[in-house]
Amino acid sequence: MNVLVIGANGQIGKFLVQQLAQEGKHEVTAMIRKPEQADALKQLGANVVIGDLEGSVEDLAEAMKDHNAIVFTAGSGGSTGEDKTLLIDLDGAVKTMEAAQQQGITRYILVSAFGADQREKWSDAIKPYYVAKHYADRALFASDLNYTIIRPGGLKNESGTGKISVGTDLKPGSIPREDVARVIAASLQEEKTYRMAFDLIAGDDLVEDALGKL
Amino acid sequence: MNVLVIGANGQIGKFLVQQLAQEGKHEVTAMIRKPEQADALKQLGANVVIGDLEGSVEDLAEAMKDHNAIVFTAGSGGSTGEDKTLLIDLDGAVKTMEAAQQQGITRYILVSAFGADQREKWSDAIKPYYVAKHYADRALFASDLNYTIIRPGGLKNESGTGKISVGTDLKPGSIPREDVARVIAASLQEEKTYRMAFDLIAGDDLVEDALGKL
Repeated sequence: MNVLVIGANGQIGKFLVQQLAQEGKHEVTAMIRKPEQADALKQLGANVVIGDLEGSVEDLAEAMKDHNAIVFTAGSGGSTGEDKTLLIDLDGAVKTMEAAQQQGITRYILVSAFGADQREKWSDAIKPYYVAKHYADRALFASDLNYTIIRPGGLKNESGTGKISVGTDLKPGSIPREDVARVIAASLQEEKTYRMAFDLIAGDDLVEDALGKL
Repeated sequence: MNVLVIGANGQIGKFLVQQLAQEGKHEVTAMIRKPEQADALKQLGANVVIGDLEGSVEDLAEAMKDHNAIVFTAGSGGSTGEDKTLLIDLDGAVKTMEAAQQQGITRYILVSAFGADQREKWSDAIKPYYVAKHYADRALFASDLNYTIIRPGGLKNESGTGKISVGTDLKPGSIPREDVARVIAASLQEEKTYRMAFDLIAGDDLVEDALGKL
């Protein structure tokens, strides 16, 4: 597949681009906002296209041309201004869903947030971020896209272990960003993840085994 | 009908409560956040119930008990912090939709914002506010509620004229808050407004005539 990674310059995005390029099964393109981000991503093995989540659906559709799968792992992370939370995490994400549908692309993987489906799990500190993620998820559920919604727990910078736990009612936990990228890569063609949403934390199962049990 | 006005302490809300009480066709209840807001609304002729848009769906459903119609005219207005935009204008609104459905209430009127359905009409200055309104509208479209979505232009404090223009592709304009309240009141049992969304500005038609042409 030709995979477009939106948010490729982010921490999960860079791991993902690198893993996909090394794996060699798919062509990977990094969508970036600034031309100066291009070199680093090309060195990781990605093609590069410029695209702005605050731009129009039409421009985003143009950036998606000739791709078969979209991964959305952009995000303000809850610590940027709330205006960016609304413009990037919510409307930016939904615009890429609409752009994908305009392009006839069906496969779409969204990195959401642990417990985004259950309001009682939203921490007060970053509740607006959860609201944005929640409604982006809902827009994806309501779409015709063949989605996978991955909801990782607390993101860690330590090296991945390749061992995870997935489910729809997990206890809170954390997971290395490198392992989130592995789960995205493994989900691309794993039919058990199609039209599914699940929480993701570090655990005892190999990625492929965990996804196969969904 | 027993009408619950959410955001009754706001400027449009107060006009609406007063108009409904004077008209005498419906019982009107003001949902307010703070007990000290009660006296002023009782003097306008409303019953009062305490409810918090940042609370749970269950508590909101409890506050809605014994009502037949919900009017949501609460709003941060675009000038409060963006966190409130997400928590009140988007998630707060959607929680009241879910609460209404839990209570078996079907009639629901939402005050949205002019052009909230068309991204190209969103002013940069308050774009996050439009995003919140847009996704609240979408949640209402996706619900089973018998909704009316009213999208007023720039809100003015001058006295109402009772003359309006409604439609789905109006040129930008403004409207007195008092006339927005009149349109809400007139929409409650106007079948032409059922499952409809429309822009609203000052114009040449009497409220009833304009709504009857929808």
